[in-house]
Amino acid sequence: MVTFLSADNVARIAGRVGARRFWLRLVDYLREDFAAWGAFEKSPRFASHSPGGVIELMPAGDRRTFAFKYVNGHPGNTRLGLQTVVAFGALSDVTTGYPVLLADMTLATAFRTAATSALAAQHLARPESRTLALIGLGAQSEFQASAFHAVLGVDRLRVFDVDPAATAKFERNMAGSGLVLTRCADAREAASGADIVTTITADKTRATILTRDMTAPGMHVNGVGGDCPGKTELSRDLLLASEIFVEYAPQTRIEGDIQQLPANHPVTELHDVIVGRRKGRSSASSITVFDSVGFAVEDFSVLRLLRDLSIETGVGEEIELVAAPDNPKDLFSLLRPFEAMEERADRRGEMLAVD
Amino acid sequence: MVTFLSADNVARIAGRVGARRFWLRLVDYLREDFAAWGAFEKSPRFASHSPGGVIELMPAGDRRTFAFKYVNGHPGNTRLGLQTVVAFGALSDVTTGYPVLLADMTLATAFRTAATSALAAQHLARPESRTLALIGLGAQSEFQASAFHAVLGVDRLRVFDVDPAATAKFERNMAGSGLVLTRCADAREAASGADIVTTITADKTRATILTRDMTAPGMHVNGVGGDCPGKTELSRDLLLASEIFVEYAPQTRIEGDIQQLPANHPVTELHDVIVGRRKGRSSASSITVFDSVGFAVEDFSVLRLLRDLSIETGVGEEIELVAAPDNPKDLFSLLRPFEAMEERADRRGEMLAVD
Repeated sequence: MVTFLSADNVARIAGRVGARRFWLRLVDYLREDFAAWGAFEKSPRFASHSPGGVIELMPAGDRRTFAFKYVNGHPGNTRLGLQTVVAFGALSDVTTGYPVLLADMTLATAFRTAATSALAAQHLARPESRTLALIGLGAQSEFQASAFHAVLGVDRLRVFDVDPAATAKFERNMAGSGLVLTRCADAREAASGADIVTTITADKTRATILTRDMTAPGMHVNGVGGDCPGKTELSRDLLLASEIFVEYAPQTRIEGDIQQLPANHPVTELHDVIVGRRKGRSSASSITVFDSVGFAVEDFSVLRLLRDLSIETGVGEEIELVAAPDNPKDLFSLLRPFEAMEERADRRGEMLAVD
Repeated sequence: MVTFLSADNVARIAGRVGARRFWLRLVDYLREDFAAWGAFEKSPRFASHSPGGVIELMPAGDRRTFAFKYVNGHPGNTRLGLQTVVAFGALSDVTTGYPVLLADMTLATAFRTAATSALAAQHLARPESRTLALIGLGAQSEFQASAFHAVLGVDRLRVFDVDPAATAKFERNMAGSGLVLTRCADAREAASGADIVTTITADKTRATILTRDMTAPGMHVNGVGGDCPGKTELSRDLLLASEIFVEYAPQTRIEGDIQQLPANHPVTELHDVIVGRRKGRSSASSITVFDSVGFAVEDFSVLRLLRDLSIETGVGEEIELVAAPDNPKDLFSLLRPFEAMEERADRRGEMLAVD
């Protein structure tokens, strides 16, 4: 049997563990997997493009565990009352090839994206950073706020979205979080005075949400929304003035904000900073950019955590995701219980044919 | 909600419909998708190899529907009481990217492999073929027998396996099927007098199960077991004396029996025969070979059939495979019902920390 975690049960697990401990543990799992970077088979994601969007399969595995995620991206879905992005995934045992966990990953993707941002900021932002600007208050925004609060001790938010409904939703979701919110008139006002700026807007275009003159020395920029070819948020001059960190350079050069830069522009991979092989920010006054696009290893980490937490909390259902005949060489025997039924159906079929 | 079909429910559906009608309908779906060959995005499968086996993701889609299958191959699994191959897969709507069906595909893979063999034989075997030799009586063998019985009217089987337990299992499963069985002492005896020879052995080596001198003019060879690099069943001289048909030449040249032949050896793709663009067998006395390796379009066809039959029969469960917040832009709201729980957990955590 395989453990299945619906979105409801993923939420139940997070609630059972408590937000703070959930975020800290997820960051631990991510740190462990980033530190073991060399052990992962890195494959380009498989992407199937259509006029309405894209469907992707993202595999990642080490010697013991294999994970993959199914995820879509359909910007027009909100017009149908549907989400732009939904996801599910599975974890399996490399030794036998059998799946062990199937889970909704719509929530899990939001969790791992925010936790990876927080992990990067732990290594790249100035340690005294307490004020976070959030530009773009869509589905991912509260996860970013919650993760930075738990992991970095951020306690002040400066927020902006072009859509007042998004801002209202954000304020509703953050009520009682203990975070002090400042609603700003535009992105410039939000960034002003922030230690960390997270850009996480939705437009599928080469937008310029944050420019160099909106930043200050010592700032850390967490660029989350510029995450596919043709979709960027940070201005070229800001990138050229910054120290740039990425998950996996070959992927980020295609999908990230650095798609605007020459292919040989120097960037540092986060895992090298985590293990101490490369430096993080070079000085308290430099500007750091984490050009986040989302990488399959992060899905691997969150699935691994969900499996462990499912065992620890007892939350989850068992489903028969793959056949389990008594004799592994006798798959056909699975049909036998239904043979009587089949004969009846065949007789019905003959009668119908005669009619 | 997404419809989930466990192996048990896949078997229940096949029983409900009746074997004969199930096979005929599956062959119809396959024929339809093979005929629309040009509409499919053909991608190489993603394969993750480990010392114990391989895990693969096989995507296939047309303009309306996307399918993928997770499948493993671990030859050592039977020693652990596990199956060598298990599989599951999903079907989704290209317009929205949302999944609509999740199903065990261990049974479905056996179904589609046998139905594709039967479809190929419909177009390639002599029409009067009634005697089938089955060399190799493993997990797939009964599916082949059942499909050829339903689709081609095969009523006599000549069978052989090196393992007497496999032969006993096969005879048990075929009892009451109406097929006349002849147990043979070796592969040569099985092939002798057969109209169609199916080779479906398990050894992961360059074996030679069937040679030219074991065949007769007019025979159709259905080569199923030679399906990955380094694994073949048909001798080179037999291939050179035959008219060869494949699913998708670029894949079969790597995985099929024709990996033994030069890369430019002429082969015909089955879909071209199905639509009448290319000829099937050139004469009643030629030997035809269908060098089957299994292609993602076949998984697409069987998933499409299972979805339709699930709707027609009402068999299947609804599961919350992906999150469904009331407001598609408010994913974080899914966590709210568990906030009270979380606060309790946080208090417990603090108490534990104080202890």
